Amino acid sequence: MSVLIVGSTALDSIKTPKAENPRLLGGSASHAAVAASFFGPVKLVGVVGDDFPKRYVQLYRRHGIDLEGLQRLPGKTFHWSGEYETNMNNRRTLLTELGVFETFTPTLPKAYQTSPFVLLANIAPALQLHVLDQMRRPKFIAADTMDLWLNIALADLLKLLKRIDCFVLNDGEAYQLTKADNVVTAIKKLHQLGPKYVIIKKGEHGAIVSTPKGFFIAPAFPLHRVVDPTGAGDSFVGGMMGYLATARGAIDDNLRRAVVYGTVVASFCCEGFGLNRTTKLKRGHIELRVRELAGLTKF
Amino acid sequence: MSVLIVGSTALDSIKTPKAENPRLLGGSASHAAVAASFFGPVKLVGVVGDDFPKRYVQLYRRHGIDLEGLQRLPGKTFHWSGEYETNMNNRRTLLTELGVFETFTPTLPKAYQTSPFVLLANIAPALQLHVLDQMRRPKFIAADTMDLWLNIALADLLKLLKRIDCFVLNDGEAYQLTKADNVVTAIKKLHQLGPKYVIIKKGEHGAIVSTPKGFFIAPAFPLHRVVDPTGAGDSFVGGMMGYLATARGAIDDNLRRAVVYGTVVASFCCEGFGLNRTTKLKRGHIELRVRELAGLTKF
Repeated sequence: MSVLIVGSTALDSIKTPKAENPRLLGGSASHAAVAASFFGPVKLVGVVGDDFPKRYVQLYRRHGIDLEGLQRLPGKTFHWSGEYETNMNNRRTLLTELGVFETFTPTLPKAYQTSPFVLLANIAPALQLHVLDQMRRPKFIAADTMDLWLNIALADLLKLLKRIDCFVLNDGEAYQLTKADNVVTAIKKLHQLGPKYVIIKKGEHGAIVSTPKGFFIAPAFPLHRVVDPTGAGDSFVGGMMGYLATARGAIDDNLRRAVVYGTVVASFCCEGFGLNRTTKLKRGHIELRVRELAGLTKF
Repeated sequence: MSVLIVGSTALDSIKTPKAENPRLLGGSASHAAVAASFFGPVKLVGVVGDDFPKRYVQLYRRHGIDLEGLQRLPGKTFHWSGEYETNMNNRRTLLTELGVFETFTPTLPKAYQTSPFVLLANIAPALQLHVLDQMRRPKFIAADTMDLWLNIALADLLKLLKRIDCFVLNDGEAYQLTKADNVVTAIKKLHQLGPKYVIIKKGEHGAIVSTPKGFFIAPAFPLHRVVDPTGAGDSFVGGMMGYLATARGAIDDNLRRAVVYGTVVASFCCEGFGLNRTTKLKRGHIELRVRELAGLTKF
């Protein structure tokens, strides 16, 4: 089954202690869509300006991503620029130019409205809600977010949480939103806000998945070298939703493995700038690393 | 087989946002010895003053801990006092009275010198070395440490690392010691300092175990409520060594499960002040939680 993915489609200029890479393909929807594309069909919803390089459109196409929902408007593509500190855990935004994103309204092509799986990748909650308004009875809806929306769009986000199945956020955001000082308590409070499934991302420490059947403690893949973590969280949810959409059987029976597939795609994402490493992947590389991760966690 | 455990035997006065508990039984050796006692025989090496409560001696005895190596000297027992902040992750030392610990030299009874398993729990590296000097060909030696020794006794610690099999430390200490900015790199550098086995403790995020056969990513047990984390790291190594000492077969074949047993005893430790929860455990409680943790991590 196909996954509809809405989020930002952007140009990222990324500085790390070792290198500088201007105007890479980035944005939550780009990372999530490429990650999901290894598993099955993906329908992308986003907006780019008339400066958006053709090679990035070709990149989407090479991954079989349906671009009927990608709007091309006069103006500039959303441009984000950021810098990572030595240990790659802290990042600083240097510049945010919204461009065509400022007035973006995601309007879904008819063929998109019946997608059974919907990933509302990180984007303003109002836009995530607007996408949901156009959907016809999707089977499974997951939403990601970021601290910015907790600060400036909390009411919209709370409205959204009542309408989704699965909420994905990082631990810092979970503590900020719930005011809990313990991850188990935070998860309980997040369920009370609506979603049946809650996934807390902890970066290099893995993730905690909470379902009606209990917790799953997901490991992260231990990386020898992190080149650029930008988009890792988006790759995680993208890979997870891509796997879920193509797996047979109930969500509850597939979610653990889906999270592990998401983890593995995210680990590859960190090994290159932007989408450089991810776009060179074959499904076989992912399978190998999933097996490796299984070996690293058995006892 | 028996485990010899040397470390601090102390009185801990612990303040948390919710309660204050004066003069609990504490110290690295106390926590480690009680944790190890659920699996097999334990020989304790430590020192206490003449103010050391009889009920704490009885507590050791109830756990079948051999006290021939516990020196009782005139003077005061080592007293540590600390306070935890709201989220229980940051602690502040309020007071450290070394007492009889100031002049402590661990002298091993003859019966101790042939212990096959040796746990050098957190204590000055010079004392850990002094214990090793008295041992006759132990089968497996593990050592724990703390940031203090990296700061004031680094030369001794580096000497120690060449003589032990397994080095256990937390992630912050690993980064401080190796100056690495990535856990995989830190582990590689730690192996170069001597130990064949390296275990990085990450608190609520679990542990990473590095052996000649590769990594094991160990989960932590998700706790609903952390009452007092004091001694969790000591319980972890104590439980691990207790399990290892009684398991049949090669270290490499048992270490993963040993780490999981250590993790589980440490999780119980956090659920009460000092040793309050740990001392109420039966082996059956530990087995149940190990099984639960296995269920939480399978995929």
